[in-house]
Amino acid sequence: MGCLDDFFNPGSVAIIGASKSPGKIGNVIVKNMIQSGFPGKIFPINPKESNIEGLTCYPSIDRTPEPAELAVLSIPAVRCLETAETCGKSGVKNLVVITAGFKETGKEGMDLERKLVEVCRRYGMRMLGPNCVGIMDTHIPINASFAAGFPLKGEIAFISQSGAMVLSILDWSYQAGLGFSKFVSLGNKADLTEAHFIEDAAEDPNTRVILCYIEDVENGSHFLEVTRRANRKKPVIILKSGTSQAGAQAASSHTGALAGSDLAYETAFRQCGVIRARSMPELFDLAVSFANQPVPAGDRVAVITNSGGPGIIATDAIELKGLKMARFTKETVEELRNYLPAESNIYNPVDVLGDAKADRFRFSLEKVLADPGVDSAVVLVCPAGVTEPAETARALIDMRKLYPAKPLFAAFMGGEKLEEGVELLGENGIPCFTFPEPAISAVSGLVSYARVRNLPEEEETSQYPGLDAKTVKAVFYDVKRDKRLVLLGSEAAEVVRAYGIPAAPTLLAHSPEEASRQADQLGYPVVLKIASPEIMHKTDVGGVKIGLDTPEQVHAGFLEIMDNVYRYLPRVAAYGVEVQKMMPKGIELIIGVTRDIQFGPLIAFGLGGIYVNLLKDVSFRLTKGLTNREIENMLAETKAYTLLRGYRGEKPADIKTIVEIIGRVASLVHDFPEITEMDINPVFAYQTGAAALDVKITVS
Amino acid sequence: MGCLDDFFNPGSVAIIGASKSPGKIGNVIVKNMIQSGFPGKIFPINPKESNIEGLTCYPSIDRTPEPAELAVLSIPAVRCLETAETCGKSGVKNLVVITAGFKETGKEGMDLERKLVEVCRRYGMRMLGPNCVGIMDTHIPINASFAAGFPLKGEIAFISQSGAMVLSILDWSYQAGLGFSKFVSLGNKADLTEAHFIEDAAEDPNTRVILCYIEDVENGSHFLEVTRRANRKKPVIILKSGTSQAGAQAASSHTGALAGSDLAYETAFRQCGVIRARSMPELFDLAVSFANQPVPAGDRVAVITNSGGPGIIATDAIELKGLKMARFTKETVEELRNYLPAESNIYNPVDVLGDAKADRFRFSLEKVLADPGVDSAVVLVCPAGVTEPAETARALIDMRKLYPAKPLFAAFMGGEKLEEGVELLGENGIPCFTFPEPAISAVSGLVSYARVRNLPEEEETSQYPGLDAKTVKAVFYDVKRDKRLVLLGSEAAEVVRAYGIPAAPTLLAHSPEEASRQADQLGYPVVLKIASPEIMHKTDVGGVKIGLDTPEQVHAGFLEIMDNVYRYLPRVAAYGVEVQKMMPKGIELIIGVTRDIQFGPLIAFGLGGIYVNLLKDVSFRLTKGLTNREIENMLAETKAYTLLRGYRGEKPADIKTIVEIIGRVASLVHDFPEITEMDINPVFAYQTGAAALDVKITVS
Repeated sequence: MGCLDDFFNPGSVAIIGASKSPGKIGNVIVKNMIQSGFPGKIFPINPKESNIEGLTCYPSIDRTPEPAELAVLSIPAVRCLETAETCGKSGVKNLVVITAGFKETGKEGMDLERKLVEVCRRYGMRMLGPNCVGIMDTHIPINASFAAGFPLKGEIAFISQSGAMVLSILDWSYQAGLGFSKFVSLGNKADLTEAHFIEDAAEDPNTRVILCYIEDVENGSHFLEVTRRANRKKPVIILKSGTSQAGAQAASSHTGALAGSDLAYETAFRQCGVIRARSMPELFDLAVSFANQPVPAGDRVAVITNSGGPGIIATDAIELKGLKMARFTKETVEELRNYLPAESNIYNPVDVLGDAKADRFRFSLEKVLADPGVDSAVVLVCPAGVTEPAETARALIDMRKLYPAKPLFAAFMGGEKLEEGVELLGENGIPCFTFPEPAISAVSGLVSYARVRNLPEEEETSQYPGLDAKTVKAVFYDVKRDKRLVLLGSEAAEVVRAYGIPAAPTLLAHSPEEASRQADQLGYPVVLKIASPEIMHKTDVGGVKIGLDTPEQVHAGFLEIMDNVYRYLPRVAAYGVEVQKMMPKGIELIIGVTRDIQFGPLIAFGLGGIYVNLLKDVSFRLTKGLTNREIENMLAETKAYTLLRGYRGEKPADIKTIVEIIGRVASLVHDFPEITEMDINPVFAYQTGAAALDVKITVS
Repeated sequence: MGCLDDFFNPGSVAIIGASKSPGKIGNVIVKNMIQSGFPGKIFPINPKESNIEGLTCYPSIDRTPEPAELAVLSIPAVRCLETAETCGKSGVKNLVVITAGFKETGKEGMDLERKLVEVCRRYGMRMLGPNCVGIMDTHIPINASFAAGFPLKGEIAFISQSGAMVLSILDWSYQAGLGFSKFVSLGNKADLTEAHFIEDAAEDPNTRVILCYIEDVENGSHFLEVTRRANRKKPVIILKSGTSQAGAQAASSHTGALAGSDLAYETAFRQCGVIRARSMPELFDLAVSFANQPVPAGDRVAVITNSGGPGIIATDAIELKGLKMARFTKETVEELRNYLPAESNIYNPVDVLGDAKADRFRFSLEKVLADPGVDSAVVLVCPAGVTEPAETARALIDMRKLYPAKPLFAAFMGGEKLEEGVELLGENGIPCFTFPEPAISAVSGLVSYARVRNLPEEEETSQYPGLDAKTVKAVFYDVKRDKRLVLLGSEAAEVVRAYGIPAAPTLLAHSPEEASRQADQLGYPVVLKIASPEIMHKTDVGGVKIGLDTPEQVHAGFLEIMDNVYRYLPRVAAYGVEVQKMMPKGIELIIGVTRDIQFGPLIAFGLGGIYVNLLKDVSFRLTKGLTNREIENMLAETKAYTLLRGYRGEKPADIKTIVEIIGRVASLVHDFPEITEMDINPVFAYQTGAAALDVKITVS
């Protein structure tokens, strides 16, 4: 029983807009409800009819013998508001609004939809839709939809933002022999969203795997929370479309430019353990695997084949997917050697040869599955003259029972000759493919999920001492008063230093004398930079002087910079010159932040310097719930990490400090939602400590 | 008629080892020959029989009424030599050796196989196999194989190194409804190889597309030559397995370490225009597309759908595959607007809405195919209540005829409800998939081929003036006499300079005095480096001094280097100190060469410097037939190219010189096969010219 039990298992269902005319949606829903074998009461509602499909018909929702727990609305959009109101008054708990003509049609529909939600809120009703196909549950059973059919009973929940996809997959599922626990058509997601139904399916004992097709996520933080929890119970596999609308955002920061619009989804899915299907075939191949197979203990795959070529193809696919070819124990190898003909390959992939009957497959599979070094097995069968497809299938079925904890897949490579075997496997829940690669993909999906599920329980995010929010507020106050969105370098340095991030000390000088004084104070050598939020490439306009060693040089440098900038960019406002302590060179990194409208701040880490956009060696995480372990994973995904660990005999850099800086940046952008973008580039990493040299912060 | 016409269309075929016993290979072949409808004569050969399957049986191959043009051998391996000898004497032209027990069994079999080839050579016979399934041609027709069946007639030639794959695909092809022109099982490829059959199929008028499964290539340069030519006539699609045996080669050069063992294949395939399938499903999806569809003029795809979700999925797949969403002309948009309901999407993807009958598909498809901005079209159909799958399929079939030059694909997303439509499309040669992504993959395959075929005719490789082979020979002579495989820096610099590559002048000094003299001669500043082929990281042992400005500094530097090296590595032989003119810094590049056993020298280009193995920004080409255009393409694949063209406002570098250096390096390794590996890292690219700073050459 899921948390939306009232939706899937109501005591009574009213169909408002029920109809006698075959083919009409209001008729199809009534028939579907009856044919599904729904155990509760069904109240067709239509003022013009007294009986529909053998059921008493009621003139309106407030005239049913008892309040309907669920009302399905299939009436014109203009009548929905008023009807929902009556539903609320009559004690209806939940609505499924099939009716289209809302948000998807434009401004007017959007207003109508908003009002519909308001009515629901007022009466404490929840709503699925509008503009949806409805819901089905094969275990209750209930079919409150206008789909032409009812799925086979199974353990896959399919939640789809596209109604057409529901109709397609339902029709396709019969010939694929695929069973489902639930079908949910989300429609416009005005009230209930994918997250609610994922949460429900996670709690549903009849659901083993949760499949979603979505085009967007309605509420990023709810989605993250729910899927993180759901994934510990059962796999959540999502096909998210709309990746092509990506393209770099119009953003002024490096980090923003590196993050396309799909990146937030990619990152969110990974961080909450969602398995992302890349295509519809993959979505359903994964569904088949998860519905029938156990989650493997590890990534070591054994392959048994009666032909060399397909064995090599499977080996390639295993490497490509990041899985491992299992290495058998000496005992397994010996047993295979004793039983199989001399020309067989007794190592992985086991080649039982083209003249193998079922016995060789059976023997090898048993030994291989018993081997502690094997986590899952794939059996490849080509139709040679003596092949026994049915008997071989039976061997697989028997071994499945003997070794229920190890996933077992088959590729029966052929057609008619292997048909009987393929059918037997299908009936016994052993996924069988025509070619080796999809079988390996399926194993790979299971292994990915095993990794997600085996992660230790969620840790707390680190709390850092010495976060001085007051100073940050003061800086932002000044910036806003100055009607700027971009902080000066000295301001940005002050902000990050207030959060314990070791920015190189930077002061703003308004005169050559002040600059010299500040340089004395900071210690030599120093760097001078023009202070102007409008100048992006300061070096190009003569706005930077490095390695100044004396007060005199600083004095002269100040004047020269002001002069250069005035000559190049006479109209640009300069706030003075920034005096920064010159830091020794370290490994150049970038740490940056951009914000996603759904998922909040995204933090970036990678190789820094002027080539950051060219090298694109950057990894991303959502800052929400970011643990130190995740930060380390994030580091490890980059080439920069290879440098940090000590490349070509160099001593390793202070990775702990880098992790802490990232954690502190996450705290900063979390505490100050007005920070829209932030780049620290470069951060110099040293053997001990680090220094943030150039900090850019944009506020809203 | 292909160049192996004697194999596929012989006047007479002898089956040596013909048998009466059903199930025996010698019986299956005779039956296959008869059942195929082979128009020539069939001579079963067996000393113990007089009649097999109604045909007169002859006691031996020299007793047939006329010499058989083709002999199929299905006799024990030990008798093959003698039988081949008799075949030769009796005037048999060609052999298909089905018999196993040769190279694949070890040393003894390998010897036997070699002798078998010698016999063939002696009598001018060509041989397919041994250890193969045989050959089939549906157009002749002939079935000289022991496969259990004969393919449907079609225009796909399938050439396979795996016999099991032939059996699998044949069996599978019936239910897939896929027709073939030829099936070739290559076996051990002792004489005839994939290249011979690709060449044959390229000339065969009944073949439109050539499909190969191979595990290796027998003769790299023959393969390159043949596929380059074949691809101009028809697509060659290859699935090459064994990529997992890759892993970086044990190599001392950067270039060697960057090139895995699969890289040579990857590069060879690309350079000769082979379409590489990444999996068996892809191989056959591509086959279906090419067999039925025209080659499109460009990459602009139109999508017509009756549902939003699948439209988005198709759009994503189009972007992912590097194709373009077609932009319709104003006229097309207007016509669609006038015909379709107001809520339809009239831009690409065209959404004809869920309530669309066939007419909307027909109208939209006609307008879209007529649009000059559309190169191919994909139609997506979901089974909504009013959908007319058969009528919609007919619309596609009609449009296919009206617009035969534009590829047309369908994804009918469902099962039973769409079945009639799917069947109609199949019968009429319009590839139909269940999901959108494979349809887009298929378009992408056609577009890739269009690019290959549209390339201008092959150009000559550039011939550079001033190649001084004599100097190179002299250096190599000295190195060999010194029993070294690795050249000293000064020697390597001399070698490349002899081929017109601008290496920084480098001299070898044996004493501090000589070093000072040489520095005077080269001009200051200079760099000193320890001269020892055994020291890889010279800086780490204090073996390098840079920026020396006076003879005194050079004198002192020489002594210091010798002292350092002696202290760090007392046992290493040092040849002295190299004095190199210090060059101004430019863009750091690497140009290198490694050698592949099959395909010869591979040249690499990319970002140079000490991070070359970390950044892995390198592209490769085979030097064989390398044109300047290909070199430019090679450059353009790297991030280094972005730098060369002028990054962030920098002036562009002298790309022409870099292209010339690569061409000259190609000439060098071509002229001197004893060069096994070579790294020039870094090459500094300047606004004018370039300088090779550090040249490493290994010879065999």
